[in-house]
Order: sequence, then C-alpha cells, then structure tokens
Amino acid sequence: MVLSHTTHPGNIGAAARAMKTMGLRQLYLINPRHFPDAQADAMAAGADDLLRNAVVCSSVDEALHGVVFTVAMTARRRDISIEVKTPREAMPELLQQAERQPVAMLFGTEMSGLTNEETGKAQALVNIPADTDFSSLNLAAAVQVMAYELNVAAQSYTPSAQEILPAPHEQLEGLYAHLERTLSEIGFFTTQNPARLMQRLRRLYARARPEQEEINILRGILSVTTEYNARLKSRYLEEHPDVQQN
Amino acid sequence: MVLSHTTHPGNIGAAARAMKTMGLRQLYLINPRHFPDAQADAMAAGADDLLRNAVVCSSVDEALHGVVFTVAMTARRRDISIEVKTPREAMPELLQQAERQPVAMLFGTEMSGLTNEETGKAQALVNIPADTDFSSLNLAAAVQVMAYELNVAAQSYTPSAQEILPAPHEQLEGLYAHLERTLSEIGFFTTQNPARLMQRLRRLYARARPEQEEINILRGILSVTTEYNARLKSRYLEEHPDVQQN
Repeated sequence: MVLSHTTHPGNIGAAARAMKTMGLRQLYLINPRHFPDAQADAMAAGADDLLRNAVVCSSVDEALHGVVFTVAMTARRRDISIEVKTPREAMPELLQQAERQPVAMLFGTEMSGLTNEETGKAQALVNIPADTDFSSLNLAAAVQVMAYELNVAAQSYTPSAQEILPAPHEQLEGLYAHLERTLSEIGFFTTQNPARLMQRLRRLYARARPEQEEINILRGILSVTTEYNARLKSRYLEEHPDVQQN
Repeated sequence: MVLSHTTHPGNIGAAARAMKTMGLRQLYLINPRHFPDAQADAMAAGADDLLRNAVVCSSVDEALHGVVFTVAMTARRRDISIEVKTPREAMPELLQQAERQPVAMLFGTEMSGLTNEETGKAQALVNIPADTDFSSLNLAAAVQVMAYELNVAAQSYTPSAQEILPAPHEQLEGLYAHLERTLSEIGFFTTQNPARLMQRLRRLYARARPEQEEINILRGILSVTTEYNARLKSRYLEEHPDVQQN
C-alpha cells in the first residue's frame, strides 16, 4: 500500500491497522506531512510494526521502483475517458501480477486524491462505488475496503498461466521520458497539449503491459527517430546556411 | 446501522461518514459512552446530519423494534456451532427483507464485540474475513466494509417474489420470553443450561423466520402447555394434600 502526501498521521495509523487485519504488511509513504507521529501510533492499535517498517519515499517513482502493476484510486472519472474499474474487477489481475513480482495500490492525499501525474503511473484505475452526493471515503476506510476486497479475492484465487513478464515501473517511466523527449524534439507538441497527450500514451502502454524486451525495442525506435531527425536537421542547415539554428 | 455500547465517540462519527458514503442514513446507538461529542462531529466530516438524526436507545430491543431481519457482526465462531456467513453471503437476504420492512446491522463494542444475548437477537451472524493473527477491524472500518458490501450488492440486486412476511423483532422476543417462562414452569431447565438452550432455540426460530400468525400459534401452544401443567399440578396437590407447594 502506497499513501501519497498524507496530511493526518492518524489516517496513516488507521490505514496500517486496516492493512494488517487483511494480512498486508508493506506500507510506503510518499512525503507524509507528519511521520512518525504519536497519533499514527495510537490509531495503529497493534499494527505499530507496520509503521516501524514503513518506507518513507520522496517521490512516487521511488515508491513504485520494482513494481510491475499499480492500482491507483480515483474519486471519479477524470477528463480523459479511460476505463475505471470497481475494486472487485481489479483484484484478479492484481493477484495474477503479484504471483511473480511486486504490485501496489496507490492512495492520494485526503483532500484532493491523486494527481493526474500520479494516476498516469498506474496500470489500472479503481473507484470505490459510493453515494453520488457524498462519495468521499476516509483514507483509512478506503484502504480497508481495498485490503478487504484483495483478501476476499485471494481466498478464491487460482493461479493461472502467465504469458508475459511485464517490465517494472522504472523501465516504463524511462520509456515515457524518452518518448516525451523525442516527441518534443521532432516538434510534435506544437499542435498538441503535451501533458494530455502523454496521459493518453501512458494509458495505451498501460493497457499493453510491455515486457522489458519490448521496451528496449520501443526505445530503439525512439533513438533512431531522433538520430534521423538530427541528420535531417543538420543536412537542412548545411543546405540553408542563412537559416538561424534554434 | 445499530452500534451497541460504543466507547469512543470518534468511532461513531467515522461510522456515520462510512454509512453516508454508501447511501445509508439511519444510525441507532445503544447506550453510547459519550454522545453527542465533539470528536464524533470531527470524524463525521460532512455526515453530521446522520449524527443529529441518530436515535439513542437504552436497549437492543428498543433499537430493533419493528425490524424483521438483523445481521449481527461476530469476530469469530462462538461456542454454539451455528452458521456464520461472510458479508457477501449475507447481503442478498438482507436486501430481500429490506424490500418490505426495516432491517438492521448490529455492531458491538470496540473491545469485546456483541454479547451472546445481543447476537441471539439476530437472524444472521456475519464475520468479516480477516488475518487470523490480527483480525480486529476498527469499528468504523467494519461499518465501512459492511456498508460497501451492501451498496455493491444493491446495485446488482433484482427483487424476487417473497413468500413469507416475517414477524418483527418485538414479536419474536415475546415468543422467546414466553417460551423461556414456559420451559421454566414445566421444569425443563432442571436438566438443561437455560441460557445455552435458549440460544439454541433462538437459532432454530431465526432460521425458520416465523410470520406473525405462526408466532400466535406457537404462543397458543405455550399457553395451553402452561394451563395443562397448572391443571396437573393442582390435581396432584388435591390428591396429595401432605405435599408442600413451592
């Protein structure tokens, strides 16, 4: 469980307790406002071992290092129309991925949830179905529901043959950074909103779940694209010495 | 939702919030230690209307008056071997009963849960599956899980034809009291543990879900039994004037 920018330390403690009741132990905290904290200890009520072993990170990339499948919580559908699953729908794939490599559930801050940048790093978005007029679950309550659903799903889960071995988080992020750099270099963003387009591309690759070898191929294509573009540019400048290079 | 003897007012507020996120509004409190309370208000975070409208009762019978189906939470199987359902298993019947008459979910105190007397008043026992070494969910977390399960179940629920119209709580309690009195009068308890036996009889009738008419029949049988017993006793005393009446 990864909690991003948690404001109230009591929620961290309550989340730890919620996790432990469902057999989950590994808590990651991205820039918590107050931690460690006496309120966190008080709300943990017997799950203080999870707090002692919690890993405090300074970025979502650090927290998700080595993770191959991340489920991000979302309060509602975002502007980009992507699939948002229910907790129950998301669990089978989470369990399947967890068979071989680390997986994560990512929870945002109490007031505003996850940023678009953070949800963009996940392979699945999940919304806990709630009353439309009052839909904001307490953070620890959301952790409890997700941990509970995972526990119930795990009890009836039967491992299945897995055909792909998806690349970990940091390799995907390397691809996205390379892609964005390349699209910028080839001038693609002059007619597109870069942030929005990168969100769409992240969704596309999130669905595809690329393996390490496939990421190498994609990055190879990007490298060649840049080199080709650089060659074109240098030839153009040779032929038009009067044009100013920018 | 009925919370019995809640110790920490913050849990009442958090439970109210959990309920409201899932569209539930009616909160009953049996002898809360502190209520109303500023901590309850703080934890309700927008669900303070549920706290204002909460009904404070002095007994479980008062809280369940008019209720036809009660789900009681249990941390583990009790000594009497009765069926304990998962939250998911319990929801269809709860929803079916709720179509026509009030239903309830009953939660015990933070430290020790519900008493055997309280669970004996329910038609179904539910245990939230949890880690065997650390199974104690926070009260509000348990309310959140149950409210969430109800909400998910309600979204896919299709009403079905209902054949019986079960009698409300107070009529069942009337039957149990009558039954216990009668069994005591006929001397049945001299060879049986009364509390344990009544728990078993409560289970039997909870499964049967008697209608009002059936309860009238059962109580009619009890009345005749007592009268028959009284006649036997008076005849015996007439024939044996030397025996002291106790």
